[in-house]
Amino acid sequence: MRETGANAAIVASNANIFYTSGRIFRGYVYIDVEKEETLRFIVRPSGLNIEGYTDIRKPEQIPSLLTEAGCHLPEILALELDALSYSEIIRLQKAFDNCPIVNCSGIISTARMIKTPYEIEEMKEDGRHQANVYNKIRGLFTENMTDIELQIEIERLLRMEGCLGLYRTNGNSMELNLGTVLAGDNADNPTPYDFAVGGGGISLSLPVGANGTVLRSGTTVTADMNGNFNGYQTDMTRAWRIGDVPPLAMTAHETSRAILRRLEQEGKPGVPTSKLYDIAKQMADETGLTDYFMGHNQKAAFVGHGVGIELNEQPVLTPRSKAILAEGMTIAIEPKFVIPGIGSVGVENTYVVRAEGLECLTNCPEELLSF
Amino acid sequence: MRETGANAAIVASNANIFYTSGRIFRGYVYIDVEKEETLRFIVRPSGLNIEGYTDIRKPEQIPSLLTEAGCHLPEILALELDALSYSEIIRLQKAFDNCPIVNCSGIISTARMIKTPYEIEEMKEDGRHQANVYNKIRGLFTENMTDIELQIEIERLLRMEGCLGLYRTNGNSMELNLGTVLAGDNADNPTPYDFAVGGGGISLSLPVGANGTVLRSGTTVTADMNGNFNGYQTDMTRAWRIGDVPPLAMTAHETSRAILRRLEQEGKPGVPTSKLYDIAKQMADETGLTDYFMGHNQKAAFVGHGVGIELNEQPVLTPRSKAILAEGMTIAIEPKFVIPGIGSVGVENTYVVRAEGLECLTNCPEELLSF
Repeated sequence: MRETGANAAIVASNANIFYTSGRIFRGYVYIDVEKEETLRFIVRPSGLNIEGYTDIRKPEQIPSLLTEAGCHLPEILALELDALSYSEIIRLQKAFDNCPIVNCSGIISTARMIKTPYEIEEMKEDGRHQANVYNKIRGLFTENMTDIELQIEIERLLRMEGCLGLYRTNGNSMELNLGTVLAGDNADNPTPYDFAVGGGGISLSLPVGANGTVLRSGTTVTADMNGNFNGYQTDMTRAWRIGDVPPLAMTAHETSRAILRRLEQEGKPGVPTSKLYDIAKQMADETGLTDYFMGHNQKAAFVGHGVGIELNEQPVLTPRSKAILAEGMTIAIEPKFVIPGIGSVGVENTYVVRAEGLECLTNCPEELLSF
Repeated sequence: MRETGANAAIVASNANIFYTSGRIFRGYVYIDVEKEETLRFIVRPSGLNIEGYTDIRKPEQIPSLLTEAGCHLPEILALELDALSYSEIIRLQKAFDNCPIVNCSGIISTARMIKTPYEIEEMKEDGRHQANVYNKIRGLFTENMTDIELQIEIERLLRMEGCLGLYRTNGNSMELNLGTVLAGDNADNPTPYDFAVGGGGISLSLPVGANGTVLRSGTTVTADMNGNFNGYQTDMTRAWRIGDVPPLAMTAHETSRAILRRLEQEGKPGVPTSKLYDIAKQMADETGLTDYFMGHNQKAAFVGHGVGIELNEQPVLTPRSKAILAEGMTIAIEPKFVIPGIGSVGVENTYVVRAEGLECLTNCPEELLSF
């Protein structure tokens, strides 16, 4: 932050409010970069009386409250230019006498890549809960069930397990309900987002996910459902088959698992994330699965991504990324394949980067078992 | 839009993409204000091939594509300054040679207040589906159930009925899962948002709604759950009691219903929304319910709000609002009361403003019946 020249930063997006304060409130976190001090201003509800938080009605009160508290007002102010609306940024800038502003969105995203031991424990808890539910999914299947019906029963089990039922995502545009269950050829329907497997959905107002496909023999089903139990989240996909599926689907699924085993070894501090993508792509190519790797009609240009408070954090495992793995990063790796006429297969796990390789947080059987 | 001097507007938020195009996609809707023409640019997935949509990789391509299409580039460009991030706005402005920008967020919000017959039909459909589910809620109750367990069963029925499981809300900060079921004194716990009844939630990362309260005799329960079945939504609350509750709670609930009956008559085109608030407040005061009206520990300063693509649209029914009702507006009215030690009571309906008064879209019994 100091390198930007900013003397202070103000954080107001939900994700960064939670990151800096461990709780969601409506207000502003003021970070004095020089003093390394943090002040919290809460807009609503006033009277919540959190110790050390200052009640305000509007952000225009912040500068005089800072002066009263003995803080120098910043000459350069860092704000979340990627997360707050243009109007909110201009309002904050005006409140600080139109002082120059710089962007702290990227700086905080970079800091958030490396999780503290506390954050990793929170994510371990997510992974345990998510795995508890995934272990029960086979028992939910009934004859002639649709993908939506299966998803609803998974949603219910997730919520019973304590899932908060909310995704936080980076950027304004990505929208999801509680996740995606994809059956058969719906996995090959494109979505508006950068997903390897997406699904067409049931409404033009949410064109993603399950679309009412009946789960029928000879096809596959994948579940990529919400893992947010405490404000952090793990990201996890498992696949099942209904009866027998062609060898191509079985091979693709086992290749996904082989890629994960290899990347669990290779994923060490100092390794470029692009190398993980390259290994995965090469293993898919060598198995003759190029056309199906990370999607078929629509392909995703990555094999994994950071995950934490938000579902889509840094780093991204793409061929063009310059990011380097570091200890404490948490990444979801999802080598998936879409087989036309059959459906999607593959496994997604969330890992923490350790000195010796990747530690899995989403431990649950990975085989392509029959429902 | 013409009054702002803008020759064109670009819309890119999900809510306004859906409003202007009837579908969600990642991209930009360019509105030529002079020609009254609309051009759509889709970023992803390219190859979706929607007739009349132009594929682009990035917004910087838009100006040259417009020139090719015979459009004059705007001298003043209207953008959604309240909805898009500062970085997105600056990027678009730069793409248009740093031309002056004005804010179209408010203009579009104002236009969106008045629904077309098509939009009203969509919302009628929402209301029918939502009422179908609310009619089944009494049958879900079991002894020693918690508010969360009840909510999960309601969520399941909503999703089975076709609920999309997603709220769109105006502004960045409001977060919800599929709604709020509030039991007993949890209704008096404040939330970060401007809710009359909110609830403390189960996590500091989502401090709203059900908190694990066991539904016990002598208390009340309210359900204010998701009504989005098609991209539009209705907003609806009903209340129940467990066994007998004190006369104060019964009186407050019946006062809520009396307020709705009165406002259904008074709510005609030309009437200020502040008048509806004043009537509601006066009826609450005259019944001796001042301390409980629209919350107890934390009070909301409104009795209703516009609803449509987003849950919290214009107009807001507050004492200080200058808004005037007009035919075709859709508003949720929610005179609620929080009775300490008992819980929340009251009814919320969504209405469309007609020449002769308010037409209810959420028709379902309103009595405070016992579970």
